[in-house]
Amino acid sequence: MNSAATRSPRGAKVAVIGAGSWGTTFAKVLCDAGSDVTIWARRSEVSDEIQVAKRNSQYLPGVNLPKTLKATANLADALRGARLVFLAVPSQSLRQNLHDIEPYLEPTSVLVSLVKGVERTTTMRMSEVIHDTLDLEPDRIAVVSGPNIALEIAKEQPTGAVASCASIAVAQEVAQACSAPYFRTYVNHDVVGTELGGVLKNLIALAIGIVDGVGYGENTKASIITRGLAEMTEFAVAQGGDPITLSGLAGLGDLIATCQSPLSRNNTAGRLIGQGYSQEETREQMQQVAEGITSVAPVLELAKSRGIVMPIVQQVAMVLDGEMEPKNLGPHLATEDGIPRRELVLKRDSKPGWRRLFGRRKERTQ
Amino acid sequence: MNSAATRSPRGAKVAVIGAGSWGTTFAKVLCDAGSDVTIWARRSEVSDEIQVAKRNSQYLPGVNLPKTLKATANLADALRGARLVFLAVPSQSLRQNLHDIEPYLEPTSVLVSLVKGVERTTTMRMSEVIHDTLDLEPDRIAVVSGPNIALEIAKEQPTGAVASCASIAVAQEVAQACSAPYFRTYVNHDVVGTELGGVLKNLIALAIGIVDGVGYGENTKASIITRGLAEMTEFAVAQGGDPITLSGLAGLGDLIATCQSPLSRNNTAGRLIGQGYSQEETREQMQQVAEGITSVAPVLELAKSRGIVMPIVQQVAMVLDGEMEPKNLGPHLATEDGIPRRELVLKRDSKPGWRRLFGRRKERTQ
Repeated sequence: MNSAATRSPRGAKVAVIGAGSWGTTFAKVLCDAGSDVTIWARRSEVSDEIQVAKRNSQYLPGVNLPKTLKATANLADALRGARLVFLAVPSQSLRQNLHDIEPYLEPTSVLVSLVKGVERTTTMRMSEVIHDTLDLEPDRIAVVSGPNIALEIAKEQPTGAVASCASIAVAQEVAQACSAPYFRTYVNHDVVGTELGGVLKNLIALAIGIVDGVGYGENTKASIITRGLAEMTEFAVAQGGDPITLSGLAGLGDLIATCQSPLSRNNTAGRLIGQGYSQEETREQMQQVAEGITSVAPVLELAKSRGIVMPIVQQVAMVLDGEMEPKNLGPHLATEDGIPRRELVLKRDSKPGWRRLFGRRKERTQ
Repeated sequence: MNSAATRSPRGAKVAVIGAGSWGTTFAKVLCDAGSDVTIWARRSEVSDEIQVAKRNSQYLPGVNLPKTLKATANLADALRGARLVFLAVPSQSLRQNLHDIEPYLEPTSVLVSLVKGVERTTTMRMSEVIHDTLDLEPDRIAVVSGPNIALEIAKEQPTGAVASCASIAVAQEVAQACSAPYFRTYVNHDVVGTELGGVLKNLIALAIGIVDGVGYGENTKASIITRGLAEMTEFAVAQGGDPITLSGLAGLGDLIATCQSPLSRNNTAGRLIGQGYSQEETREQMQQVAEGITSVAPVLELAKSRGIVMPIVQQVAMVLDGEMEPKNLGPHLATEDGIPRRELVLKRDSKPGWRRLFGRRKERTQ
């Protein structure tokens, strides 16, 4: 693909599908990056408020939106002439939304997922749902991910993100469309790693919430984040991801922001469980199930089938099932034989990746 | 080296030199791991209190120390028969302490640095100071490092650490001597990377303090930690360290714990500067200079001589020098040409390492 021919000029027309807090925030970023943005809201009272008052008081209260932002509740109007279509709808309704927008898509438009999660019924990642529904070429499917708490970005607090596509030229086009003064976007072509970072971090955020609820401090949390990233990386590499992606903004960056944010639902659910609430009580208290809780079982099953050991996620599952006291969750479980292990070992016999040792390999002494 | 011949049995005799908060905490860990521990304090009122009352009320108030812990102000008594000698003295007085203990060291004893920092007059790492002073073989010099806030460990909150020595057998011996139920110790043989993690994290903690003082939130901090780790890694690799070490407990783990701890001096110094205090006012306010502030200039100089770009450390230097507003520090500076870059690029032509792209390499499009 020739990058000069496809790169959107400044002011290229783009659409954002979904006007929740993240969709609205991202529309602001795109405007501030100089793009010509139309946001689509399902409900006309939301699109009317954005179009007329430049506010979204339900999902982004107190934030002034750019004057240049246009809004509509009409999909055809939103998608007309849009080279880039950013998807910001709930993960479980992405498939239906794709069916809805299909008739109005331009023939060369690129679909960019802003959604973190997997489809529960199929365990597909969002880019896989796009491919499965619309049968697009890989260079028309992209994702943007990173340490992206919506309200902080809406307040223009500086952050970074990653735009990922099988084609680096398309990733650069996407990144350029959303590189605002306070929002720096890098590129890669590892869609699998970029998406899995946003899924797996929720499991580690649960663990962080649990030890926070117990009352443990910064050492414990830092150890769990460090070892948790190693587990996330090993899992992602087994699915074809690149370890470098996991050590970047879409992996480590998103993981840290989520683990530190008191607003994270996974963090909150973990904290309640760490304080002694049961899984059912937590669900009642929060009036919803945290994304991470529903992902624990399928991730562990997939890990098992690939021969990957994920001790922290395993411990989270045991705590959730009432088989382990929250205070016993931690990075401190001894190996079976009591011999100290190497912390991380590079697997040199295949593509770059890390292998942790968990009593499975013989130690080489020097 | 034959591991069976050198591995200390449970209950092996070890010494801790220095009875500040970290030395005293580490002595407790060693006792709880089953080692036979004598701690040396410079002042006899401190050693007397530990020996008799099992308390160190000045440096570790409110913490009960193990009954088995012995204390003395006599170096010969502390070092007699000690196979492992753990050093927990201030970085700038390590050299003098080494001269003091030299006459009493057992001929095969291993010296283990618990000290994070570099000697200001020589810019040597602590293991280099040990080598320079006592001229020991590499398999008699080890370090232990990780996300280790003393008071949390004294309260037995679970954490991990890394024991590092050129000889993995010796690293395992050290790790075994300090693997308590709440303190899991891994091993590696990358002394350079393990030590540099503990030095470089202070520079990134300064940056985190600065943006915290400005009032930025979790995205900004997560982005700086992520990009900061990449800078730390590139620097350490250029000094001969292994990138894997930096992504482990002695790198990432220590970095996160330090950046999140409100007790960190570097964090505090950064916060004052972020709030608008000058470097001089900060020094007066804190009545000391934070370790990170003194390291900025030498690290940047060394980085420059190796052709390494460290944008975050560079920005910290500019803020310290009054050349940049604290609110402009961040991971969001645009590249010169406005073309989005790859976030991290694996350098495939030498030992495993990461290379960030900062306008220095040509982008390869697919």
